[in-house]
Amino acid sequence: MMNITICLVSQSVENFYLEAIEEYAKRLSKYCKIQLLRCKREEHLAKKLMDKYYKILISNTEQSLSSLELASKIEALGLSGISDIAFLVGTQALQTDESLALSPLDMDPGLQTTLLFEQIYRAYRILKHQPYHK
Amino acid sequence: MMNITICLVSQSVENFYLEAIEEYAKRLSKYCKIQLLRCKREEHLAKKLMDKYYKILISNTEQSLSSLELASKIEALGLSGISDIAFLVGTQALQTDESLALSPLDMDPGLQTTLLFEQIYRAYRILKHQPYHK
Repeated sequence: MMNITICLVSQSVENFYLEAIEEYAKRLSKYCKIQLLRCKREEHLAKKLMDKYYKILISNTEQSLSSLELASKIEALGLSGISDIAFLVGTQALQTDESLALSPLDMDPGLQTTLLFEQIYRAYRILKHQPYHK
Repeated sequence: MMNITICLVSQSVENFYLEAIEEYAKRLSKYCKIQLLRCKREEHLAKKLMDKYYKILISNTEQSLSSLELASKIEALGLSGISDIAFLVGTQALQTDESLALSPLDMDPGLQTTLLFEQIYRAYRILKHQPYHK
């Protein structure tokens, strides 16, 4: 199983976003190991995030992916033997292996993290040829 | 004040999204009159949505707007004398005046509606030259 860590750097996160994230994490548990790593500051994240992770920055400055493209991306990473992935939300300061965009919009980091969880769930449903809704 | 109706066509909406929408609607109440109109089926929406509304379909098939572009769009509609706007989420069946995209991703309709509320709130903060965070 792929081991995915979503790193969210934000001073505060709205409760409704935390609930949404928890729900998608629960649904994802049959497809991958996924966890949310919350940090208030970038320095804290750098210490916690070990070298083993392939780091992907979520930005909004490049061409946004479609849901199918994100699914293909996750599949390709798995096939290339990368099994520990960290997605970084709400930070620009750390060095990452690549960056990708989900939308050109500026977004609340809690919302962006919710969207990322929802899209990773959608990606696994696509890859397993399962309908999105249970 | 602009009168904005967000029409969400969906069989069900997660509670955390409804809570998020309620929170943004509360924050938006000082900038515009905004309401969520939920319908389970498109036919119901057609009946409820009066002709006075300028109808904008939220799609994901065209070039996505940035947050600044969405703010300019809302400002331009106001300046052109349009004061009743309906945004349509989760439906393709009704005839609309225009369509715009927030992201190329396929998204849960509840999440897409949350994103739209967040972006309209962000748009008003931008137009009023106020920082996003209170």
